[in-house]
Amino acid sequence: MRAKRSGRRAPRSGDPLWGALAGISGAQNLVAEASRLEEYSEDMAGFRATPAIVVRPGSEDEVRRIVSLAGRRKIPVVPRGAGSSLTGASVSKGAVVLDMRRMDAVLKVDTVNWYVSAQAGITLEDLNKRLEKDGFFFPPDPASSSICTVGGAVAEGSGGLRCVKYGTVKDWVLSLRVVLPNGKVASFGEPLAKNRAGFDLVHLMVGSEGTLGVVTEACLKIIPIPAAKPKRLLLTFDDWRSASDAISQLKASKIMPHMFEFLDRETIQAINKNLSTSEDEAEATLIVDIEEPSLGAATEIFERNGARKVVMAKDANEEEAFYQIRSMAYLAIRGLGKAVQVEDIVVPVDRLGEYLMKVKEIAAKRGVKILVNGHAGDGNVHPVILYDEDDKKSRAAAFHAFEELCRYGISVGGSITGEHGVGTQKAKLLREQMKAHEGEEALRLMKEIKKVFDPEGIMNPGKYVEAA
Amino acid sequence: MRAKRSGRRAPRSGDPLWGALAGISGAQNLVAEASRLEEYSEDMAGFRATPAIVVRPGSEDEVRRIVSLAGRRKIPVVPRGAGSSLTGASVSKGAVVLDMRRMDAVLKVDTVNWYVSAQAGITLEDLNKRLEKDGFFFPPDPASSSICTVGGAVAEGSGGLRCVKYGTVKDWVLSLRVVLPNGKVASFGEPLAKNRAGFDLVHLMVGSEGTLGVVTEACLKIIPIPAAKPKRLLLTFDDWRSASDAISQLKASKIMPHMFEFLDRETIQAINKNLSTSEDEAEATLIVDIEEPSLGAATEIFERNGARKVVMAKDANEEEAFYQIRSMAYLAIRGLGKAVQVEDIVVPVDRLGEYLMKVKEIAAKRGVKILVNGHAGDGNVHPVILYDEDDKKSRAAAFHAFEELCRYGISVGGSITGEHGVGTQKAKLLREQMKAHEGEEALRLMKEIKKVFDPEGIMNPGKYVEAA
Repeated sequence: MRAKRSGRRAPRSGDPLWGALAGISGAQNLVAEASRLEEYSEDMAGFRATPAIVVRPGSEDEVRRIVSLAGRRKIPVVPRGAGSSLTGASVSKGAVVLDMRRMDAVLKVDTVNWYVSAQAGITLEDLNKRLEKDGFFFPPDPASSSICTVGGAVAEGSGGLRCVKYGTVKDWVLSLRVVLPNGKVASFGEPLAKNRAGFDLVHLMVGSEGTLGVVTEACLKIIPIPAAKPKRLLLTFDDWRSASDAISQLKASKIMPHMFEFLDRETIQAINKNLSTSEDEAEATLIVDIEEPSLGAATEIFERNGARKVVMAKDANEEEAFYQIRSMAYLAIRGLGKAVQVEDIVVPVDRLGEYLMKVKEIAAKRGVKILVNGHAGDGNVHPVILYDEDDKKSRAAAFHAFEELCRYGISVGGSITGEHGVGTQKAKLLREQMKAHEGEEALRLMKEIKKVFDPEGIMNPGKYVEAA
Repeated sequence: MRAKRSGRRAPRSGDPLWGALAGISGAQNLVAEASRLEEYSEDMAGFRATPAIVVRPGSEDEVRRIVSLAGRRKIPVVPRGAGSSLTGASVSKGAVVLDMRRMDAVLKVDTVNWYVSAQAGITLEDLNKRLEKDGFFFPPDPASSSICTVGGAVAEGSGGLRCVKYGTVKDWVLSLRVVLPNGKVASFGEPLAKNRAGFDLVHLMVGSEGTLGVVTEACLKIIPIPAAKPKRLLLTFDDWRSASDAISQLKASKIMPHMFEFLDRETIQAINKNLSTSEDEAEATLIVDIEEPSLGAATEIFERNGARKVVMAKDANEEEAFYQIRSMAYLAIRGLGKAVQVEDIVVPVDRLGEYLMKVKEIAAKRGVKILVNGHAGDGNVHPVILYDEDDKKSRAAAFHAFEELCRYGISVGGSITGEHGVGTQKAKLLREQMKAHEGEEALRLMKEIKKVFDPEGIMNPGKYVEAA
């Protein structure tokens, strides 16, 4: 029997579920009142679903007992960190939500074997603050680093600005402790630089979006904070074709930026308007971190491709100011007063220019505004669709634009997601990508693996692979 | 019904299996005579099993048709590259062996998106020769690079000397084309810098040792050949404790060597004896590649820990000579005229000294000779057990020593394999490691995943996870 997915009234003191959970984690760690459940009923993209009850477990053993209980009663279970997911992955109607943030201990910083072992509920920011004391860092840096948790970042396989150089979360996980849907505890992988004992279940958990089990602890690779800081450049171009050619040529010239971001004219306009700045409102703005030895070659490439401005930050303040342009983009766009949908498509780097021009074409056709920013070095585009939430036609136009953005990405050999994941939002599009690229067998195997881990279908049900 | 594993007479011209396979790949691409099957009946560690027939497919479609045929007839199928496996993974009694080496094309070198796409049968050496033309390389460098294939390296999740800096094969695979045991073709992953669409089946294939499907093509990340070469040092120490302390301190000092190898006194003695060299026969010899800026700090660490010799290679010739000490070790040991078993244990780097002393203790207790070399920077030890093949007692002693080496590794938080894999050799020890570290649920999930991919049990049966 699959788990029930229909809504259920939130249990109250005296209700058997409330009582059982209170017996495990203490009544003070339950959230069941409608007003307090609100916080857990929405993710950062506005996907909504009200849980039955929230538990804030304090230990792996509590997680194990809660999952066992939910399994026996066939109630959905959803692990949750900050709820900063953008795809509906962290909300589930009628579910027992596990707010993992009480489990936030750093268990070990190993400066010889270069790993950190931590509980799932610590934020990436706190993790990095702790690592900084020893001169180390954990490279993946999602925009939500100040609130998002290790468990959430593992479940989503998150990316970030530094990932062009360092890769995403999947490249940094050595081992995981997991409470399985059957209530048993397992460890996947080993806290070792090398390990070939058994199939790789670690990477199956990374990006599984809470559908295979609850990550309680992670052992993550860390590296020393680099001694030499790269130089930061701000560039503008008059058209995307030139900017895109410059990006491709930089990579073809074997230059590996530490960060390589882009923003379009409308994003810069939003920033200037809302944050009272006066940045150059060019068609394309790039912000690039380049190591000193490659600076000359990089500048030459940018100028050869018609950059109308190439500015190197002259000091740490200016470096921070350049960075702020990128990091303030979302806030500035929010300030435009429209509903916002942040998309996440990956295309081959040499098709970036073509894709960005297509974005504008789709926007014009659908009559919605689409701003773009993203990670140029790995072809990861974040189109931001603006629409009017109260207008049915505008909502429909935004939805059609979103689907078209994904489908065009698939058609040029891209992926519907680089770092945000699938959740409920893209389950149908995941199926389309699999059919177009991987083949239906790949999706079938994923669905079978889901059943192996979760035969009763209690873990974050009705989403992602299961729903594709 | 599971595949039959008992021996069968090799089919001949006129036999229906022979005829069917000749119809797919051509009679000239079949090997069925006993004398020619010999080459396919043994791996590099001497694990023996005679296949029914060998086919040398020329295309993915042929592989698909062969696997379908084997599936219908419930005959085991084993993909094979050079057969350089050391664990019995590439030999299987009565099987249809797919010698993949005719499928050796480089399909695409993408210097913008930094990947190479190639068929499974190309050797790593030929792949790197092709990449060198564009100034790129594929970092993992198993000792068998001159013969081992991309498919074999993916199936085994191979490591090598450069892996201390760059990681093993698992860190370099973007996507794979796979013929599944049901004869269907799937693609796993995408040739993109980032991709979060679906569960990670790529990493499930890496290190699956031919038990989940046949890899026909791989898309591998590549990086530019570094402009600045590190400096190469040769060091000797009078005891393992000091050498091991130096290794740990180097890593704790945030120095990342590009290569960090070690050899013991008896290995150096074997080299001096068999290759007429006159290397310092110290208890511990280290060969380290260090980037120039860290050279002073590294030298200081080595000297502080009592290195009796710290020599920097003065030119490319001397660099090559230092490298040859390491790469000739196996040949020199072979020259001792004994049967040789090369082991592959990983321990936390800070327990390396303790482990190496235990190796000598085990050797003394069991009355066998055990030489050691390996990759110091990632704690990967290759004990080389010498024994007399014709002496039952010596064989038994070697076997007990081998098991003890693995078990002691497990007991100090290590792994029974870092880069050679499990095969038939370590299936029982895999179970022991899982029980001790990961828990039995992890192994159960692996076995279930094997059944999902291969319900009829035709792919490289009776080994690894299935046999654990």
